[in-house]
Amino acid sequence: MIKPEDQFKKVISHAKEYGYVFQSSEIYDGLSAVYDYAQNGVELKKNIRDYWWKAMVQLNDNIVGLDASIFMHPTTWKASGHVDAFNDPLIDNKDSKKRYRADVLIEDYCAKIEGKINKEVAKAEKRFGDSFNKEEFVSTNPRVVGYQEKINSILTRMGKSLEKEDLVDVKALIEELEIADPLSGSRNWTEVKQFNLMFGTKLGASADSAMDLYLRPETAQGIFVNFLNVQKTGRMKIPFGIAQTGKAFRNEIVARQFIFRMREFEQMEMQFFIKPGTQKEWFKHWKEARLKWHLSLGMGEENYRFHDHEKLAHYADAATDIEFKFPFGFKELEGIHSRTDFDLKQHEEFSGKKLQYFDHEENASYTPYVLETSIGLDRMFLAVFSNSLVEEELDNNTTRTVLKLPAVLAPTKAAILPLLKRDGLPEVAKQIVEDLKWDFNVFYDEKDAVGKRYRRQDANGTPFCITVDHETLENNTVTIRHRDTMEQKRVKIDDLREIIKKEVDVKHWLQKMN
Amino acid sequence: MIKPEDQFKKVISHAKEYGYVFQSSEIYDGLSAVYDYAQNGVELKKNIRDYWWKAMVQLNDNIVGLDASIFMHPTTWKASGHVDAFNDPLIDNKDSKKRYRADVLIEDYCAKIEGKINKEVAKAEKRFGDSFNKEEFVSTNPRVVGYQEKINSILTRMGKSLEKEDLVDVKALIEELEIADPLSGSRNWTEVKQFNLMFGTKLGASADSAMDLYLRPETAQGIFVNFLNVQKTGRMKIPFGIAQTGKAFRNEIVARQFIFRMREFEQMEMQFFIKPGTQKEWFKHWKEARLKWHLSLGMGEENYRFHDHEKLAHYADAATDIEFKFPFGFKELEGIHSRTDFDLKQHEEFSGKKLQYFDHEENASYTPYVLETSIGLDRMFLAVFSNSLVEEELDNNTTRTVLKLPAVLAPTKAAILPLLKRDGLPEVAKQIVEDLKWDFNVFYDEKDAVGKRYRRQDANGTPFCITVDHETLENNTVTIRHRDTMEQKRVKIDDLREIIKKEVDVKHWLQKMN
Repeated sequence: MIKPEDQFKKVISHAKEYGYVFQSSEIYDGLSAVYDYAQNGVELKKNIRDYWWKAMVQLNDNIVGLDASIFMHPTTWKASGHVDAFNDPLIDNKDSKKRYRADVLIEDYCAKIEGKINKEVAKAEKRFGDSFNKEEFVSTNPRVVGYQEKINSILTRMGKSLEKEDLVDVKALIEELEIADPLSGSRNWTEVKQFNLMFGTKLGASADSAMDLYLRPETAQGIFVNFLNVQKTGRMKIPFGIAQTGKAFRNEIVARQFIFRMREFEQMEMQFFIKPGTQKEWFKHWKEARLKWHLSLGMGEENYRFHDHEKLAHYADAATDIEFKFPFGFKELEGIHSRTDFDLKQHEEFSGKKLQYFDHEENASYTPYVLETSIGLDRMFLAVFSNSLVEEELDNNTTRTVLKLPAVLAPTKAAILPLLKRDGLPEVAKQIVEDLKWDFNVFYDEKDAVGKRYRRQDANGTPFCITVDHETLENNTVTIRHRDTMEQKRVKIDDLREIIKKEVDVKHWLQKMN
Repeated sequence: MIKPEDQFKKVISHAKEYGYVFQSSEIYDGLSAVYDYAQNGVELKKNIRDYWWKAMVQLNDNIVGLDASIFMHPTTWKASGHVDAFNDPLIDNKDSKKRYRADVLIEDYCAKIEGKINKEVAKAEKRFGDSFNKEEFVSTNPRVVGYQEKINSILTRMGKSLEKEDLVDVKALIEELEIADPLSGSRNWTEVKQFNLMFGTKLGASADSAMDLYLRPETAQGIFVNFLNVQKTGRMKIPFGIAQTGKAFRNEIVARQFIFRMREFEQMEMQFFIKPGTQKEWFKHWKEARLKWHLSLGMGEENYRFHDHEKLAHYADAATDIEFKFPFGFKELEGIHSRTDFDLKQHEEFSGKKLQYFDHEENASYTPYVLETSIGLDRMFLAVFSNSLVEEELDNNTTRTVLKLPAVLAPTKAAILPLLKRDGLPEVAKQIVEDLKWDFNVFYDEKDAVGKRYRRQDANGTPFCITVDHETLENNTVTIRHRDTMEQKRVKIDDLREIIKKEVDVKHWLQKMN
């Protein structure tokens, strides 16, 4: 087993080594918080996207797709609130010239106190041994209680100040806590300022009419502005959904944790338009439906949990996250939000166009409510990849690295391996490649001993290795080796397509949702 | 038949009406030269992309994929030449405040002279009737010859001036020809200036280190900067290719012709790395291979032609376009370029990293040459869509509008229609939907008379209509109607999956390339 603290490092280096994720523009020393998907990564990403699309669009007769552009009319972002409210509070250190998120500096300060609590707990645990009751200890030990109260009071004050946009008090808090620049140790801070996270650019070159544009910070608005066009041309009846995948951009100040939080990322969003008053039942429905989708991939029920929001965004009347156990702990993977009629109403106001639905049964028009499911494709990639990467100890005291990707998502479905590079074995193996490549991504490899080739495919995530040996020449059978069990079976070449198909077929996997 | 001059208008309105393409941000009166793909458009676009990807990546064991980010390190665009040379010559009218491409103003002037030639030809044709020889007339009629000479001399002078970046002479030419602002008639022009077509933005908020970025104007460079990482981690041997689809952005001054030339667009590119000296044979190979891909879709051999470039870009030693007959004439659909080692050499120089390949057979390192195939996904969409849209006169003196999309690309594969909305027919139809939806995009429709529903599906491009009637209840058969022939056959429900699959299967279509 890989130790938890090493797992994340291992994930990042494995992703590079096996052609899943490269740092962007690496030959120019990279671009911070931007990554490229390499030859295997692009296939895994594509397979995840397709798996989502099939489940959301193809299987639901009341959900259709959309592919709105990244550029949108700038008024869109006034209506959505992003121009005014999509900000981070930033503070500069005057000596080091480095810029920080003020709230993150304060949170990091609290994390240090948290560290002290953990130390006390560890000490006590050592002292009391088996009879140690952690819950009781942290709620009664005066020192720990004091630390906890301090954390709570700091975070509460910060939360209130940010909500009121009282940036002067955020600065005051940083000074009172004597927080120093983690790099330089200096406490010589500027004021706290709001910084908008949208990337700006300019459209057109006309002398009088160059237009300030933003790169969309989310894909949702592309759906809202198209709501009526889709509803009318698609003759959609409420309830119905519009699904979209696509790039979005956020100028994150502190972007970190590999592909978990990037400046350029891809979302998979579905906005479900419903009758006002039915949002509670649909919220429940989509919570369950989305969790089922995740569970169908078989990555362990214990790795998912719901986190219901207590503090709601201005547009929401209910919100929950599906959190996944990443190598760095449980973090948001997907959000399910009851957005009310906030967005459509805002676009009505700013565009002057009616965005209402005429309900024939009710014989009345209304502005629909919206239920949103929003998942980060890159996060889903990281969830699948990090969860799949394991090191196994084998009987002969060696270890093997295996990437146990769900077979439906694996970039390459089967590797075709001639046991030896002679005796006509490569020719037979290549013929199998020719036959199977129309249905699956397959890979031919004749280099190195077959055991080494098996290991390479294990690390690569390939579910099946098919080996052509001398017996093949006699009776048209090959061995098929399963990545996870390492079991090998002898099967007929003619049966290969069906054997592989059964295990990798999207239909087969999606049916697990039922 | 739709008249050629009306076909393009019809294409644009049909694309809107049937949910293929909407103007972007339409409720805000749109964004110039930016479009959204609607519920059917997104599926057609996706199917084209997948058809390309399968042909290029899955079927070629020496081509792998990549998904590089839109943001790249800014030095990339210095190395590629885009910072210095990706410009349009612009001129402002001081009175109207409108900005124009200087070269387009001059070309439009020449187009007017061309119009005079056409008038002379038409007059002469009328006068001489059947005995008229156009070729002879245009090469001997003094007036026409004079016009043609004038055009040639103007375009030659402009070409030379642009090549030398002699913008003063371009301005002089506009003044000598007395070209006026087409809107205001004013001849009060500014100087001609170069305008870079890349969209700029700023990354990061750090006080001292915000970085000027560009939105990539092409996807090719994302492949070049990753060349060595892919080659090494994928253990690729030359010749090999890297394929990528993705968005690119150009701040076009005059963007027009619907989705043919957009400011935000998607490319499907493959860069094939080869041994220097073999570029001629690979150029020939990829010309043929790419044309075969196009022809496999069955859109008419007569609609394609090669256009070899005489004037080559600075990086190319051979180039050709595959042109397609759009409603507005033959235009570039795909480019095939022999790019030499220009790009890799440039990145070597600007990054200081070696981007060479060690050839074990030759026992030597070299910088590979590159053969590029580059197709616009949006243009391919327009080619497929406009070519498929036909109006047919039927026997009963009515016309029907049919979107004869290649079945493999059609957004919806089959519509399931109960003949009546009662007698249990909808229930049976819905059961068929449940069975087929795992394999295909299917659509249920019970509204209006069945004839009207057929027409709706014809216009929508759906290859099959499956109708459930009273006989279905007796013997589990349905009628299946083919969009193009309107022929109906009675078949068993149990056979539907195979019948449809045979016609829409990607494998079946791709095999036509052989």
